Amino acid sequence: MEPYIHTVQYYETDRMGITHHSNYIRWMEEARVDYLARHGWHLARLEELGVVSPVTEVECQYRNTTTFADAIAIRVSVVRCTGVRMTLRYEMEKADGTLVFTGKSEHCFLGQGGRIVRLKKEYPELYETLMGLAEES
Amino acid sequence: MEPYIHTVQYYETDRMGITHHSNYIRWMEEARVDYLARHGWHLARLEELGVVSPVTEVECQYRNTTTFADAIAIRVSVVRCTGVRMTLRYEMEKADGTLVFTGKSEHCFLGQGGRIVRLKKEYPELYETLMGLAEES
Amino acid sequence: MEPYIHTVQYYETDRMGITHHSNYIRWMEEARVDYLARHGWHLARLEELGVVSPVTEVECQYRNTTTFADAIAIRVSVVRCTGVRMTLRYEMEKADGTLVFTGKSEHCFLGQGGRIVRLKKEYPELYETLMGLAEES
Amino acid sequence: MEPYIHTVQYYETDRMGITHHSNYIRWMEEARVDYLARHGWHLARLEELGVVSPVTEVECQYRNTTTFADAIAIRVSVVRCTGVRMTLRYEMEKADGTLVFTGKSEHCFLGQGGRIVRLKKEYPELYETLMGLAEES
Repeated sequence: MEPYIHTVQYYETDRMGITHHSNYIRWMEEARVDYLARHGWHLARLEELGVVSPVTEVECQYRNTTTFADAIAIRVSVVRCTGVRMTLRYEMEKADGTLVFTGKSEHCFLGQGGRIVRLKKEYPELYETLMGLAEES
Repeated sequence: MEPYIHTVQYYETDRMGITHHSNYIRWMEEARVDYLARHGWHLARLEELGVVSPVTEVECQYRNTTTFADAIAIRVSVVRCTGVRMTLRYEMEKADGTLVFTGKSEHCFLGQGGRIVRLKKEYPELYETLMGLAEES
Repeated sequence: MEPYIHTVQYYETDRMGITHHSNYIRWMEEARVDYLARHGWHLARLEELGVVSPVTEVECQYRNTTTFADAIAIRVSVVRCTGVRMTLRYEMEKADGTLVFTGKSEHCFLGQGGRIVRLKKEYPELYETLMGLAEES
Repeated sequence: MEPYIHTVQYYETDRMGITHHSNYIRWMEEARVDYLARHGWHLARLEELGVVSPVTEVECQYRNTTTFADAIAIRVSVVRCTGVRMTLRYEMEKADGTLVFTGKSEHCFLGQGGRIVRLKKEYPELYETLMGLAEES
């Protein structure tokens, strides 16, 4: 699958002259939303079903700096899906192939009123998609 | 009334070495929320009443640059309140008294389902507060 | 010219359920950078020449709300260029053609050490481009 | 030492109605800057010495949600300092004592032109402060 591309904006740089580190966690979200949408699970569709998947943990390794106008290619994969939790992995590269960032995010699934959702039972179709993606990776 | 103080954060600077101009509009919100709260109208209280006051217009004049660690004193005043719209004015100064920013925001008042609220009739107490502040300024 | 497209990110929404108004000023920057680049003046090229064009004024009219996943088409035009100042205009539409935002930004041109740059004399090529665009609009 | 307090801003919430998870990494920076300043090492002082301490890794555990107007108490401690790297730990609580966030950040120290700085030899005073804080924690 083609990676998601984020072009670094001027407002994402800081006075060290580089991309501020807090932006990568936003790009993880951009790439995750795009990745799930391309596999048939747009966040808007999940929201219509009454499911949200808040982030419970994040890990970021900053490996090289980036700055304004860099085109960042972001690859997402499903590391693990247990039916109540999902872990995604992210790799970001500059156009010249330099690895700039690796990271992980962990999510749970919540339904109406914040109760925990068990995907296998309640949303078997979503569960199948995520399990399939986890096996591939 | 004492001004609201916002200390410029590192993540608010850009690679020109100065505060990115998009942040001032956020500080306007911070100062506005603080100002209304000090006059008895915390945004949370308004939300409980089912009233939101979205921004309909903004004007910003950037008069001097600021950067990381500057303490910005923000003064808010009510320029005008018609009962369906409210206009606020903002002045921001550095600790040395340099004027760095002036601006305005215009707001309407919306109730449940996005209908326009007429303050005088529906929320006379809020109307009185805002009219009083408008006269003062 | 094709408009610049910004897709609203989840992290750009607020708890009213809509795009937070502070983001539009960032999209103005995104679209402006793209617009100037398409006319041969990428911000990186300007920076190499030692020229920065900080924002001196901004005006925003919020005409309709937008939210997560909306694709916003942004059109930029040069309203005026005096050789020491430049004014740009912005129009933003949703995919269904709804006008959601109009705005303006005013910029000056600064060289090394923050001195004011006179485009006509010092950067005649940039001056010609901007004057041409101002006439078109 | 008194914790650093960050009050959640409206613009930090998202359309789930809670604080967007990307903001906590910014509050880590706010609290870290404040913590180091209170121990005599304001970032501005470090920058004057020509030292920057970019973030090389971040870990975030989101334990409870927060939202607009919550006052978040943030406690910072030095977990480890090797003289070339430093690891900090963060704990965030709401006013009612609920633990909402724990996290870590790892930093290196870079001097002019991006070369790695050895604190013990080059900045012994800073090294002593950090080693002392690491022992305390």
